[in-house]
Amino acid sequence: MKTMDEFMEHTIQDLYSAEQQALEAMPQLAQRVQSDQLRQAFQVHQRETEGQVKRLEQIAQQLGIDPDGETCMAMQGLIEEANDLLDQLEEGPVADAAIIGAAQKMEHYEIASYGTARTLAQQTGLEQIADLLEQTLEEEKQTDEKLTTIATSSVNQKAAQE
Amino acid sequence: MKTMDEFMEHTIQDLYSAEQQALEAMPQLAQRVQSDQLRQAFQVHQRETEGQVKRLEQIAQQLGIDPDGETCMAMQGLIEEANDLLDQLEEGPVADAAIIGAAQKMEHYEIASYGTARTLAQQTGLEQIADLLEQTLEEEKQTDEKLTTIATSSVNQKAAQE
Repeated sequence: MKTMDEFMEHTIQDLYSAEQQALEAMPQLAQRVQSDQLRQAFQVHQRETEGQVKRLEQIAQQLGIDPDGETCMAMQGLIEEANDLLDQLEEGPVADAAIIGAAQKMEHYEIASYGTARTLAQQTGLEQIADLLEQTLEEEKQTDEKLTTIATSSVNQKAAQE
Repeated sequence: MKTMDEFMEHTIQDLYSAEQQALEAMPQLAQRVQSDQLRQAFQVHQRETEGQVKRLEQIAQQLGIDPDGETCMAMQGLIEEANDLLDQLEEGPVADAAIIGAAQKMEHYEIASYGTARTLAQQTGLEQIADLLEQTLEEEKQTDEKLTTIATSSVNQKAAQE
């Protein structure tokens, strides 16, 4: 890897792996959730993530690269950590608070990575690709904010009473 | 783990492990950096991180818990990924761009985790602890912004010419 094009390829492939791992992990997190509001947020984000995967495939096509080729080890670590945490928790408000925390870590990984990819695309004149990455970046930020709202407006209060 | 107190303990211990891993990893990233501005930013953040570790020790003391006890698997994954990426790069502007991306992922892990811990502390009436966590959270956000500025104002332009 010597050029920004190759770094861009690596970043897109890493994100493609991260999103696919997230797609598998999210239903497992959602099924351990007690709050209906939180479960619905996971279901909405699951559909959104399917769209984000399609966007990465579109970007890969425009770049003339294969979206497969990397395994995102950071997302593996995040999911392993989330599972390890949930193994220590029974279903209930405290588990819901922990699931929100784990999901926000996954969101922030994606926010950092899409942020890097978007900036790379902007600075190498790939405007259409930068726009696609920006759309996903905004969705990830909104999901993160929605999770904070669910935590502070309902889940954490219930959990504090446990 | 059944109560918010126990979830808080887990979160602080996870952050303590994450910060200590970051303290070890940062000098290794910094020594592969070509840009003086970026190397200085790492040195500043290294000292800041030492202060953040002390803050976590202070919080653990106030909570009456041991800060040790967890290994942050997500930070392990992030560092493994950064090393794997750097193994593929020779020193230069593209490597600098990749190092910024890797460091921002580490920052975002910490932003998500300190955000969760701060909100938990606020909502369980631990105001002093919430203030300490908020101070670190702001430092992490500023570091993330500083890295974006270094990328967009200098490193990425040089890298795009490679």
